[in-house]
Amino acid sequence: MAGSTFGNIFKITTWGESHGKALGVVVDGCPAGIELSEDDIQSFLNRRKPGQSSFTTQRNEDDRVEILSGVFEGKTTGTPISMVVFNKDHHSADYSQIANCYRPGHADFTFDAKYGFRDYRGGGRSSGRETIGRVAAGAIASKILEQLNIQVLSYSKEIAGIGINYDKFNTQEILKNPMYMPDKDAADAVAEVAKEKMAEMDSIGGIIECKVSGMPAGVGEPVFDKLDANLAKAIMSIGAVKGVEIGDGFAVANSFGSTDNDGFEMKDGVFEKTSNHAGGILGGMSDGSDIVLRAAIKPTPSIAQTQKTVNKDGENIEINIKGRHDPIIVPRAVVVVESMVAITLVDALFTNMTSRMDNVKDFYK
Amino acid sequence: MAGSTFGNIFKITTWGESHGKALGVVVDGCPAGIELSEDDIQSFLNRRKPGQSSFTTQRNEDDRVEILSGVFEGKTTGTPISMVVFNKDHHSADYSQIANCYRPGHADFTFDAKYGFRDYRGGGRSSGRETIGRVAAGAIASKILEQLNIQVLSYSKEIAGIGINYDKFNTQEILKNPMYMPDKDAADAVAEVAKEKMAEMDSIGGIIECKVSGMPAGVGEPVFDKLDANLAKAIMSIGAVKGVEIGDGFAVANSFGSTDNDGFEMKDGVFEKTSNHAGGILGGMSDGSDIVLRAAIKPTPSIAQTQKTVNKDGENIEINIKGRHDPIIVPRAVVVVESMVAITLVDALFTNMTSRMDNVKDFYK
Amino acid sequence: MAGSTFGNIFKITTWGESHGKALGVVVDGCPAGIELSEDDIQSFLNRRKPGQSSFTTQRNEDDRVEILSGVFEGKTTGTPISMVVFNKDHHSADYSQIANCYRPGHADFTFDAKYGFRDYRGGGRSSGRETIGRVAAGAIASKILEQLNIQVLSYSKEIAGIGINYDKFNTQEILKNPMYMPDKDAADAVAEVAKEKMAEMDSIGGIIECKVSGMPAGVGEPVFDKLDANLAKAIMSIGAVKGVEIGDGFAVANSFGSTDNDGFEMKDGVFEKTSNHAGGILGGMSDGSDIVLRAAIKPTPSIAQTQKTVNKDGENIEINIKGRHDPIIVPRAVVVVESMVAITLVDALFTNMTSRMDNVKDFYK
Amino acid sequence: MAGSTFGNIFKITTWGESHGKALGVVVDGCPAGIELSEDDIQSFLNRRKPGQSSFTTQRNEDDRVEILSGVFEGKTTGTPISMVVFNKDHHSADYSQIANCYRPGHADFTFDAKYGFRDYRGGGRSSGRETIGRVAAGAIASKILEQLNIQVLSYSKEIAGIGINYDKFNTQEILKNPMYMPDKDAADAVAEVAKEKMAEMDSIGGIIECKVSGMPAGVGEPVFDKLDANLAKAIMSIGAVKGVEIGDGFAVANSFGSTDNDGFEMKDGVFEKTSNHAGGILGGMSDGSDIVLRAAIKPTPSIAQTQKTVNKDGENIEINIKGRHDPIIVPRAVVVVESMVAITLVDALFTNMTSRMDNVKDFYK
Repeated sequence: MAGSTFGNIFKITTWGESHGKALGVVVDGCPAGIELSEDDIQSFLNRRKPGQSSFTTQRNEDDRVEILSGVFEGKTTGTPISMVVFNKDHHSADYSQIANCYRPGHADFTFDAKYGFRDYRGGGRSSGRETIGRVAAGAIASKILEQLNIQVLSYSKEIAGIGINYDKFNTQEILKNPMYMPDKDAADAVAEVAKEKMAEMDSIGGIIECKVSGMPAGVGEPVFDKLDANLAKAIMSIGAVKGVEIGDGFAVANSFGSTDNDGFEMKDGVFEKTSNHAGGILGGMSDGSDIVLRAAIKPTPSIAQTQKTVNKDGENIEINIKGRHDPIIVPRAVVVVESMVAITLVDALFTNMTSRMDNVKDFYK
Repeated sequence: MAGSTFGNIFKITTWGESHGKALGVVVDGCPAGIELSEDDIQSFLNRRKPGQSSFTTQRNEDDRVEILSGVFEGKTTGTPISMVVFNKDHHSADYSQIANCYRPGHADFTFDAKYGFRDYRGGGRSSGRETIGRVAAGAIASKILEQLNIQVLSYSKEIAGIGINYDKFNTQEILKNPMYMPDKDAADAVAEVAKEKMAEMDSIGGIIECKVSGMPAGVGEPVFDKLDANLAKAIMSIGAVKGVEIGDGFAVANSFGSTDNDGFEMKDGVFEKTSNHAGGILGGMSDGSDIVLRAAIKPTPSIAQTQKTVNKDGENIEINIKGRHDPIIVPRAVVVVESMVAITLVDALFTNMTSRMDNVKDFYK
Repeated sequence: MAGSTFGNIFKITTWGESHGKALGVVVDGCPAGIELSEDDIQSFLNRRKPGQSSFTTQRNEDDRVEILSGVFEGKTTGTPISMVVFNKDHHSADYSQIANCYRPGHADFTFDAKYGFRDYRGGGRSSGRETIGRVAAGAIASKILEQLNIQVLSYSKEIAGIGINYDKFNTQEILKNPMYMPDKDAADAVAEVAKEKMAEMDSIGGIIECKVSGMPAGVGEPVFDKLDANLAKAIMSIGAVKGVEIGDGFAVANSFGSTDNDGFEMKDGVFEKTSNHAGGILGGMSDGSDIVLRAAIKPTPSIAQTQKTVNKDGENIEINIKGRHDPIIVPRAVVVVESMVAITLVDALFTNMTSRMDNVKDFYK
Repeated sequence: MAGSTFGNIFKITTWGESHGKALGVVVDGCPAGIELSEDDIQSFLNRRKPGQSSFTTQRNEDDRVEILSGVFEGKTTGTPISMVVFNKDHHSADYSQIANCYRPGHADFTFDAKYGFRDYRGGGRSSGRETIGRVAAGAIASKILEQLNIQVLSYSKEIAGIGINYDKFNTQEILKNPMYMPDKDAADAVAEVAKEKMAEMDSIGGIIECKVSGMPAGVGEPVFDKLDANLAKAIMSIGAVKGVEIGDGFAVANSFGSTDNDGFEMKDGVFEKTSNHAGGILGGMSDGSDIVLRAAIKPTPSIAQTQKTVNKDGENIEINIKGRHDPIIVPRAVVVVESMVAITLVDALFTNMTSRMDNVKDFYK
């Protein structure tokens, strides 16, 4: 079936394999009249680019995005925006070893199980490069949110068990360290562990956190398309994610109603919540406070250590995955999480516009 | 917008308010030829019925399901199956106090923010009774899975911080204790804590675990409609869920590639995984091993303790939520999680049938 | 698969068989705050009710609609509106003859071909009674259009080759004659032919026309979800429809660009079209002039004449279809066409609200 | 909103403007294992290419398609197939005159009404070039149908009122004459009229017919996703189409049940229909006989005659549309109709595979 399309009104369709000719996305349902340039997209793509530190792969992918449609005289026209990144750095030879075997932790086996064969070059469709389309679309969603005064901030909250100290939280710091952490000390500590693990030919995981501020109340649909449900799908659809939580998340399991419930109060004439255990969403709809969510990212499955596996002929073999691989995916996934959140929010905001007849009447009067 | 429909090929649409005339669901896309009776549905609904122990509400809801369409001479016909449960036990008076105020932890405020007003009787559409439609549909999905030799088992894994001991895991025990736990000792310990918390007019949360066995490999779509992504949406769309994880879940954040990767091996001629940290899903597709997922359930927001909140006139007030409310939602949510998992799996299995041209040709030859 | 759901934002799901327990519809995505009563729905349903003249079946179906959800204190709440009509007049015995044979012109054979068997009572899901759900939903869509000052008018344009005279067009006349024609003389002439054909145990077809006035310009999506494309699907999905046309329709095949193009002009400061060959839609979007469309309705397939067919055992047989059947479906289908048009327009109007970023910004400021 | 995506399981998303950088399509849900080359696509695209006769525009568009993803070692992989045609022949200057005025019969006005402005170069998104994506996707759909032994044949049935003589019907003739008619004499007669109309700076319309043979019975969904309903949408979504009919189409309006009903019979042990007034579809599902449908195509709106219109400043003006335009769109639209039919059939065939539980069980056993 399909499955490469996400969203209902603001709808994205991604395509492309790691080592095919190109990867891209079609964004349909973007309103007309938004100023948009390739630079807007490129700055987002650059945040997922490898080769930026010793902890990310040294491939010089140099992904340059081209907008092929949907923008005229610098503005979106309301018609589908097609964006493409042509692949330049193939090195297909590097991947020949994986053609006939199933790498542990990868989707090689499941692709073969589903389709009978697979494009084995660099992971094909299951490569991290699949996120290029998501991030290009996320750049557009972020421009829309910006115009609505909604901010999405995402960062590494914890890597290899080393978490940030919220007392040292510094937004400006995030893009300055290779871990995309808002706490330089934590980032430095992670760097030490990462070096050790690289030496051991191993890899590490972590947690990405995302905060949305400025979200109006009442956005999201109350049953299956709950805002948190759609966010959960959006985030869990990212390759290495194994868990998603909103607000206090798994900690609610060991909490009590008396502490988990957020009170409401009027303070100086303003309606407020007295706490935010709910993470900004009640009954599937935004409650006006910050939306807070977290994603658990597994360690990079590509490791140079010897691993046991099976080849296509059904023989037990050992493999050492060669090539350049990130020992940590977490930092590069930060912008992917941010993009998927932005896309989901835009779709929910658009969907919400027909919830009251009065609003529809105002629109068409 | 819509938002009351879930699924692509096996598609369910739920409707109904807590204290309206009725609640129900339309299941569209159910194959023809499945034996189905109201008893099949009722046995599922009974698992979510309150009044079964001192830890669940004492309302005698006695929800009787009626099948109104889509079944002829005891078999599904392939046309939409409409199921309804008429509300009998209203006691609307109990809920009058909440008409003009926003209960902490509930969706009262967000409903008003979205729609301008709400059906305030018993939570209206945001009531736990909304899950009646999900469970009725889940009963059908489970019948389909049964015919494909796929088993879904769900239970309380942890309540109020007290977790089950897997060495004592006993499937037969689950339905015997009011906590729906597969470990009697843990259930007994929870009961003690629950009694204390009830006396304190407080409530407790927990974690539900779900295991799927017999799932064929290769089911799920590799990008946005990943099996785990759709499961995450399905689970997070259940009222009180604040987190979802697959396999090792959040624990992967502090794991290493060398331990998190599951090896493959041929053992006595059978292809197997040497471990299951991935929880049965790789690259969004089932890998043939058990699917394992967990949901974090928040404490019941309705508590009898005095809480601070705001009324519709913007005044700070205090409320004590009267009426009969579960101090723990977890046990009643077990069948809801199981239902949403079953529905999601059926849709994924159906979707998967056109993944290879050879299969399509076989079908139409 | 599914296929019982129509619409994207304003979404309806119908269910039910001719002689099952009940038929109904769930309308999801209806905005909150619309005054709605069962009488609003009933007045629409009454227009499709049989037994109103000698030319429609004499069954006393007396379809009473009940609203089961989505309306509170007389107003829509924004949550799904479930409506049901319970079947009262079964007479199942009348239909026993068709259980084992394939009636010509009916879907008996194709249902068996698809599903392996069918609910044969009165046509089951393929009965004209399936339109109950469409009309109930259409009544709601019409209320929405009314609030936006959009009028949908439908009527029989031609039956048995006898067309209306537009010089005698009288809107008030439509509901007064059993043919639902806006021209009494044409209706009388049709009645004569109908009597003859009834005596011959035969049936007749016709054309329904629908005009929409007050539609704002720019509604509809320019590619696959063109307003005319969605209308064509909506109309062609009605049982007996074999053709759909917009504006000049099939007549354009024999027209010239110089005559078919509608000019634009400013007249007394107002932008206008000088003609309306296009039927109010250009490039898939409304152009501000009246939308005009027509549907071709086939003669009732149930006729009492002896017909040759085949039974389930593969034997050539002859059948005479007993029971009460309309010799003309056209008049009863008028409200069904009107309903499907109204539903399609509402969905297009809602979809259109995010076409410009300025509008989105205005909404959320 | 969106609206650039068509299909449910076999899903296409088109993008691109007439004089933008490129146009293309993403085909998602194509099964794995189909041999596919750019030549397969190109041969379809060539059928819609202008410059092939004196009756089609003389622009040398030379549209070369590139497959950017979804094909590996000559076979489809099951992942999205992205195809692109880069624009080479811009001549933007030719179109400057239309930037500020509304061409009669075109979507200039409605685009401005919807989006506030438009890409006016060559019609932008509303250009006939939008069909490039449809035809590229249609080529893939046709390959799938071929493997299932289903043939789709389309041709001009009538142009400028001159219809083909079915006694002279010659399939081989279709691609030999510039009218794509299966009757050389009719094509010659049309050519005469076309020359006259060109001299008069006018344009002509016509009717395209499409026949599908080899379709298995029971394909299509019985309510809203009727096979004929989805075909109607598919066809009506093509730019210049103003009417769609199935089987006898509008002629049923003046027919009788006794003649319109197709009988069933066993002939030499084979189940057959005795006629095909229904056009191969009963109750929205294929009945095993040929599917027959027709589309009414309006005359090319771009004519060189002086026309009255209005400019963006609201002034009444006269325009003469310069540039190279087809006096007949009909022949070039033949392959577009064929493509949309093929796409719709494939989606219906795929959707149908889960209609019986026995089939699902066979698949997964």
